[in-house]
Amino acid sequence: MHDISQYQDFFISYLKSQNITKEPTNLYEPITYILGLGGKRMRPVLTLMAAEVFDTDYKVALPAAMAVEVFHNFSLVHDDIMDDAPLRRGKETVHEKWNLNTGILSGDAMLILAYQYFEQYEPEIFRDLAKLFSKTALEVCEGQQWDVDFETRTDVTIPEYLKMIEYKTAVLVAAAMKMGAIAAKTSEKEACLIYDFGLNLGLAFQLQDDYLDAFGDPETFGKQVGGDIIENKKTYLYLKAVEFSGSEKAAELKKLFSLQLEDNTDKIENAKAIFNESGASEATQKAIEMYTFKAFETLDKMDISVEKKNILKTFGENLMGRKV
Amino acid sequence: MHDISQYQDFFISYLKSQNITKEPTNLYEPITYILGLGGKRMRPVLTLMAAEVFDTDYKVALPAAMAVEVFHNFSLVHDDIMDDAPLRRGKETVHEKWNLNTGILSGDAMLILAYQYFEQYEPEIFRDLAKLFSKTALEVCEGQQWDVDFETRTDVTIPEYLKMIEYKTAVLVAAAMKMGAIAAKTSEKEACLIYDFGLNLGLAFQLQDDYLDAFGDPETFGKQVGGDIIENKKTYLYLKAVEFSGSEKAAELKKLFSLQLEDNTDKIENAKAIFNESGASEATQKAIEMYTFKAFETLDKMDISVEKKNILKTFGENLMGRKV
Repeated sequence: MHDISQYQDFFISYLKSQNITKEPTNLYEPITYILGLGGKRMRPVLTLMAAEVFDTDYKVALPAAMAVEVFHNFSLVHDDIMDDAPLRRGKETVHEKWNLNTGILSGDAMLILAYQYFEQYEPEIFRDLAKLFSKTALEVCEGQQWDVDFETRTDVTIPEYLKMIEYKTAVLVAAAMKMGAIAAKTSEKEACLIYDFGLNLGLAFQLQDDYLDAFGDPETFGKQVGGDIIENKKTYLYLKAVEFSGSEKAAELKKLFSLQLEDNTDKIENAKAIFNESGASEATQKAIEMYTFKAFETLDKMDISVEKKNILKTFGENLMGRKV
Repeated sequence: MHDISQYQDFFISYLKSQNITKEPTNLYEPITYILGLGGKRMRPVLTLMAAEVFDTDYKVALPAAMAVEVFHNFSLVHDDIMDDAPLRRGKETVHEKWNLNTGILSGDAMLILAYQYFEQYEPEIFRDLAKLFSKTALEVCEGQQWDVDFETRTDVTIPEYLKMIEYKTAVLVAAAMKMGAIAAKTSEKEACLIYDFGLNLGLAFQLQDDYLDAFGDPETFGKQVGGDIIENKKTYLYLKAVEFSGSEKAAELKKLFSLQLEDNTDKIENAKAIFNESGASEATQKAIEMYTFKAFETLDKMDISVEKKNILKTFGENLMGRKV
């Protein structure tokens, strides 16, 4: 097996070897643009790693890894329209650089392109990959819809929130790994175990993202620190703080999360203070640890060498140890 | 074999038996809504007919027919956003009835749902159907992009226009038929022939749509007569009229097709007069006949009974004989 930065390099070389832009260029150039914006390529790297965990050359998993990355970027293009986001990875979003219609149509084409990458596999593998992909993609849409619905609801529960982030984020991490397992033709049992590993890691990852959004280092966190507070996003931190606070503090927090301000300095500070005092910060860190632990527990059940378990564990530790 | 209205009934029964709406309802209700708006169900009917042409019960082709109809409606939902259309089949469009984000997200879910219908087939058939579907879906996106691009171009040629309508409309009619053939496990040769039949019929159909948009009966034509003229759409009629007219008349027509008016009565009348005088109307009718004839020629090459050829021919004649 290789280390993570090598899998990143392998994937980026493969991505660059794909000539996506063709006529009509107004359809395909935005696709090349968004796929070229970078990012950690976490999902396709997991697909390649998973294949090698099951004793198969990562090269076999490259088309599946590409499908995962193209799908992830499709969801970014359409989500950025829905969120009216001007920037993505510090560059203009597709609908900003081009226009709304281009964002919609190029996104649609990406979803189809993702499926086409599975055509490089034999029929049974193609079917297994496409089936998992469709299920996952639909769950991602459902997760996005829950997220939209939650914006206008004040009665979101923690189980509902966890279901939302599971669908919106974790299932794709899980599916990315299972696709590597499918490409490697491993047993259904092992494929399901690595899916569970990815699912729990994905949940831990998203909860950590929520945590870092409030408490991350502004120097290294990719997004604006306090962004969720500014946008009144009811994340795990917020929901736990409401749960743990007395009615007065809870009312104060709810009030805070209804404001739309010019200067958010005080709002962010106050919200973070309540997150800390209420014990919500600690509870969030506990939940992150719990999901990471559940992921590692799944590893123990897998029929792979200790060396390989350690590689996956190290990946998980690195991901969760990020201070960004 | 059955007649067209029977295939419509079979398809509508199947459609109604599908419980698409589930949680989150804001994602799935718009899908049930748009699929229930009606229409002639031409594409799924062709899928069912094609299966029976190749001696296979139409029931085998129902999931493929459903995929085609769900995809067609996906493209309507996203196109209606791009065209900012308030109405579809006389009812509110999805983005009007709900909002832009719902239109985008429910559309995305429909594209994925369409693929899921192929999962009801064995791996080889699944792969063949999904592969044809992806190719076709991407061509439909390309056709839509060409259509958008053409709005701001003044140098569109007739071959370019024909390529655009081939991609935007005809390939899906062709693929709908080929999917019936694939579900029926016919030979690749026969499947390709029925694809060509559908492609030429689809081209004839779209050119007739262009023609009827200007010269159809307002009583029976589903859309506003003269709509393309009002919107300055450079259809086959327009392009042929420019080609056939002297420089003075051509300039007049180009001027007319740059106007945005409150009252379009005179504009429509003048445009139609130039279409007739220039010979563009006649040329369009000739082109419609030519593509219909090409479709029928393909039938002759097929290894099916004369009775079945006649059924397909009758379908084509009915489609082309519409006065609406």
